[in-house]
Amino acid sequence: MNQSFNSQLLDNAVAQLAKLPGVGRKTALRLALHLLRQDLEEAVALGESIIDMRKNIRYCKVCHNISEKDMCDICASASRDSSTVCVVENVKDLLAIESTHEHSGLYHVLGGVISPLDGVSPSDLEIASLVDRVAAGGINEVILALSPTMEGDTTNFYISRKLAPFDVKISMLARGVSIGNDLEYTDEFTLGRSIVNRVPYK
Amino acid sequence: MNQSFNSQLLDNAVAQLAKLPGVGRKTALRLALHLLRQDLEEAVALGESIIDMRKNIRYCKVCHNISEKDMCDICASASRDSSTVCVVENVKDLLAIESTHEHSGLYHVLGGVISPLDGVSPSDLEIASLVDRVAAGGINEVILALSPTMEGDTTNFYISRKLAPFDVKISMLARGVSIGNDLEYTDEFTLGRSIVNRVPYK
Repeated sequence: MNQSFNSQLLDNAVAQLAKLPGVGRKTALRLALHLLRQDLEEAVALGESIIDMRKNIRYCKVCHNISEKDMCDICASASRDSSTVCVVENVKDLLAIESTHEHSGLYHVLGGVISPLDGVSPSDLEIASLVDRVAAGGINEVILALSPTMEGDTTNFYISRKLAPFDVKISMLARGVSIGNDLEYTDEFTLGRSIVNRVPYK
Repeated sequence: MNQSFNSQLLDNAVAQLAKLPGVGRKTALRLALHLLRQDLEEAVALGESIIDMRKNIRYCKVCHNISEKDMCDICASASRDSSTVCVVENVKDLLAIESTHEHSGLYHVLGGVISPLDGVSPSDLEIASLVDRVAAGGINEVILALSPTMEGDTTNFYISRKLAPFDVKISMLARGVSIGNDLEYTDEFTLGRSIVNRVPYK
């Protein structure tokens, strides 16, 4: 599959683009040929924005969110409820929760979930720093907002045990049928759990 | 939709990546966060390969294929049949035909097809240089390998008229049912044409 495109420069760019997730060699070639048709400034802007971002982006020292300062805008905000901390797997999940506008507290980005199969152990994640934050006081509730998967559940369990010694409420995302989905397309396990865990009609 | 991601650097990279064809803002964010997780060298290599390619790539003076020299490897090759020239819309189509290994002649890359709706007129394409190549002599056959679309057919017709004064054979790609496709999924027009233009059974 290492077809050569008459040009080492094009070969290089295709090989690099093909390393992106979801981008195969055919798509990489299409992207490269597209970039060749663009103005020089456009292609340079793309290349430089990638290098700039990777070189200069930093992470919040408190919650490990992406930031350009020592502390991210969310942690630094006076209008947010610093007594509630929402624990998320990564920055993408943080952005997803932010876009719901339903969480006014702070965050804690773990950088992954515990997954022995992938070689991710608790020490690879920002769990110790979460425990330190809770130990420092001022936090009343920790919301575990990890994916409802085996790995997410394992991580939830591990964190809840680590936080057990502290006087802090631990909650997790509600699980049940998705709003707007037809019941017939809901998987059996979720549907079964949503009957077992039914809530009073309001 | 111009959600901010807490970081101008990330915003920039996402905006630039989202300009790529087939890449929306969600995919762009996924790519950017992926790049943030990679080693610095990986991200820099991608950015630099894009800039390098766009800045330094050149085009063959004879056939307008991508090249790093004045003349591309295909035009410069002594083993190719210089009396047969295959006319293609772009470099991608050239690569597609090359990968069939069925064409041993040279190429001529038009850089598009005639499309009044998109404002592409014959003078925007490398048609005059094709006529010059044929006028210079040594070419026995011109194969028109453009897409079987309205624009491709218009361009075929225009080129065939321009080449009419010269003693050169003009051919075009065979059209018919795709090999390996079920007949029931072939569009009516192609199927109808393939009956009208049936060929002797060999």
